[in-house]
Amino acid sequence: MKNIDVCLTPELLQQYDLKEKIVVVIDILRASSCMVSGFANGVKEIVPVSTLEECKDLQNQGYLAAAERNGSKATGFDMGNSPFEYLEEKVKGEKIAVTTTNGTLAINKSLAAKEILIGAFLNLGVLTAYLQNKEEDIIVLCAGWKGKFNLEDTLFAGALCHRLKNYFEFACDAPLAAEAMYLTAKKDMMAYMQDSSHAKRLAKLDVVKDIEFCIQESIYDVIPYLSGKALVAKR
Amino acid sequence: MKNIDVCLTPELLQQYDLKEKIVVVIDILRASSCMVSGFANGVKEIVPVSTLEECKDLQNQGYLAAAERNGSKATGFDMGNSPFEYLEEKVKGEKIAVTTTNGTLAINKSLAAKEILIGAFLNLGVLTAYLQNKEEDIIVLCAGWKGKFNLEDTLFAGALCHRLKNYFEFACDAPLAAEAMYLTAKKDMMAYMQDSSHAKRLAKLDVVKDIEFCIQESIYDVIPYLSGKALVAKR
Repeated sequence: MKNIDVCLTPELLQQYDLKEKIVVVIDILRASSCMVSGFANGVKEIVPVSTLEECKDLQNQGYLAAAERNGSKATGFDMGNSPFEYLEEKVKGEKIAVTTTNGTLAINKSLAAKEILIGAFLNLGVLTAYLQNKEEDIIVLCAGWKGKFNLEDTLFAGALCHRLKNYFEFACDAPLAAEAMYLTAKKDMMAYMQDSSHAKRLAKLDVVKDIEFCIQESIYDVIPYLSGKALVAKR
Repeated sequence: MKNIDVCLTPELLQQYDLKEKIVVVIDILRASSCMVSGFANGVKEIVPVSTLEECKDLQNQGYLAAAERNGSKATGFDMGNSPFEYLEEKVKGEKIAVTTTNGTLAINKSLAAKEILIGAFLNLGVLTAYLQNKEEDIIVLCAGWKGKFNLEDTLFAGALCHRLKNYFEFACDAPLAAEAMYLTAKKDMMAYMQDSSHAKRLAKLDVVKDIEFCIQESIYDVIPYLSGKALVAKR
């Protein structure tokens, strides 16, 4: 039987063989939620880059440039890392270059995979429907926080594993643990999330509305995927 | 306020600064449970070594030699990795050299810490009592399974964090997640554990009794700690 595994932080990714597998990259607060929101709002493509310099270069080539470091918008860029910015009229039909603390790193570490998808609570339904009929094994890659485990990405991984467990075998204990956490948390996701250290970090930055937005389930029907160096969307 | 953190596998230990901290090494199935049982049964010292060769060398110097690889006793050694072997009359007053798949590696990676303790459900009560008055920060290091996250060590980490939360602040999301898993699992720990991949691995080796033994809480009052190259016990 095909299987599903969860990699709790990109620092552990060297233990996983990505070849011929589908990697679902997760950065719930907030990179992957932003990407899903952007494509749902008509963004044409998103290019994830590692450094502020690369992001600036693409800005000079006509891209909108989104840059976040430590939770805040970097100076000199068009956008930060709030999903609400990705829902503005001005981004429709545009190309966006994006660099974030954890999300873009996770994507760049996954390049050996057969297919790289972007997941968020916002597109959980369509993502589940797409994955359940795939023949490949799946690795859910949590972007984490600076290499460490984080709660919100693991909760999402658990939500996805829970929905796919009739189709995929759990490859090790991480899917099992993530699922258990999700089933505990889902009764009051916001209360649970507010205990997370990243949510506390963001709360100081006054982005509670972002968190409330990012934990909405299945409100968009797009699946961002990597094509060459850019993310585009299955619709 | 002093804090407590959980490192989910030794592969992530480079992200933690161990200096001046107390590390509690956990390998519930079964190395740390064996060590606690052995000291409770009067073992004099336990020397953790990385290789079968080092273990053999110490056997030739008069140590009892315990060696496990992939869940089974290695050939030519006196003991494997079952807690019941550590409860036999023959180990009383003896020195034991031990090498296991995951547990000894975790100890050897922790040498920069101020103090290295061995934790298991079997000594949870005395360990909690000892730690709650300490001034140092604590890192609970899960031995995991070949570098990956595992369920049983994380459950123990959660049990310890839960008991220490009035004395130590949670340093990041891992203690929070471990605690949530423990609170979910504790109603029926055995059922929960039997879903774990390591328990499944062990069940094939016919050691269900070992698992039942290892999840008993606070039946022994010893705390193994590293002194030089050997573990000895606080009693």
